[in-house]
Amino acid sequence: MKVLHRNSGRTVIRFDIGEEFPKTLAEWCRKERVRSAAVVAGIGMLRDIEIGRYDGRDYEKEIVEPSSEILSLQGNVSMKEGEPFVHLHVSLADEDMDVMGGHLFKGTVSMTIELVLLEFDADFVRVPVGGTFWKLDTLD
Amino acid sequence: MKVLHRNSGRTVIRFDIGEEFPKTLAEWCRKERVRSAAVVAGIGMLRDIEIGRYDGRDYEKEIVEPSSEILSLQGNVSMKEGEPFVHLHVSLADEDMDVMGGHLFKGTVSMTIELVLLEFDADFVRVPVGGTFWKLDTLD
Amino acid sequence: MKVLHRNSGRTVIRFDIGEEFPKTLAEWCRKERVRSAAVVAGIGMLRDIEIGRYDGRDYEKEIVEPSSEILSLQGNVSMKEGEPFVHLHVSLADEDMDVMGGHLFKGTVSMTIELVLLEFDADFVRVPVGGTFWKLDTLD
Repeated sequence: MKVLHRNSGRTVIRFDIGEEFPKTLAEWCRKERVRSAAVVAGIGMLRDIEIGRYDGRDYEKEIVEPSSEILSLQGNVSMKEGEPFVHLHVSLADEDMDVMGGHLFKGTVSMTIELVLLEFDADFVRVPVGGTFWKLDTLD
Repeated sequence: MKVLHRNSGRTVIRFDIGEEFPKTLAEWCRKERVRSAAVVAGIGMLRDIEIGRYDGRDYEKEIVEPSSEILSLQGNVSMKEGEPFVHLHVSLADEDMDVMGGHLFKGTVSMTIELVLLEFDADFVRVPVGGTFWKLDTLD
Repeated sequence: MKVLHRNSGRTVIRFDIGEEFPKTLAEWCRKERVRSAAVVAGIGMLRDIEIGRYDGRDYEKEIVEPSSEILSLQGNVSMKEGEPFVHLHVSLADEDMDVMGGHLFKGTVSMTIELVLLEFDADFVRVPVGGTFWKLDTLD
């Protein structure tokens, strides 16, 4: 990964082939003490993707092995049990350009990801609500 | 709903289960006198969704009842006939993680929506152009 | 096209019926000397669209003639061989609201596009890596 720009709470990061995503982003957030941020753009390609759908109680997961184009990434960074937690939803195009998507658990960058973050001077946290659902909240 | 962060024209709002969306957002804009904004991220879940497709003259509408993951929300807030008007396009994943989408008329939050707004010091308005099409413009 | 707002590195542009996209955006970037930017939202409609999928060596291209709703646009602007280069991924909904998408090569605005740009004080460039892949990088 390489941070291409970081100024006034606006950050552009390039992730490179073979990197785990969003794990690499979460690790960077920990190192840089980023506690509150939004992902407002992210395009590129992923392979060996694990995505999920929340059924109201838990996530049904699915594996997508082939390289897929990332059409959109949206989400946020907050603190969950003391660690930066990246919550992302992804739209993926397959070989026929058909689109599927869901909650992004993990994947491997297969070409590049060009990501845009808004960093906030805030205290976003995940608070357990019941079952497996943790709502986004603030400390104050 | 809860405003989690609002500073320097960047706002993060959490919408909660049972709230109408984007109606609740439009009402907040009216209360807070937000006249010009962009929606640059929004993930979560909706049910009882009404989405539409513009056929050049009018909207063909479709109802999606089951809870669907919101993969992306993009759009803007402007003033239309004196009231804040929220123009949003949505991508939705169904139980099989297949994706459909269009213009979002309305839905009910079924879990949460985590929304990111950019608020502008501008005068965005909707101006009738012909038929049912109102273009985004500025007063100045 | 009309620039509806441009302040503090945040820009909203409306593109109008019949304009080539993203060509018109690239031309505006050249005129305004915009070298580094991110596209964080873009909704509207396109027709005669050429989209592609990167197969690891080259792009497989597909033409979508009918007017399609743009559900999301994400990407960035950088300099490639001395000219502003717009890298965009798009999600498109067809008449049945089914979604397809990929890398956006070109299209014609069929109604409007409402675009949100973040402009950066940076030096984004495209650097050839091998084959047809040019990675996003910075001069410094």
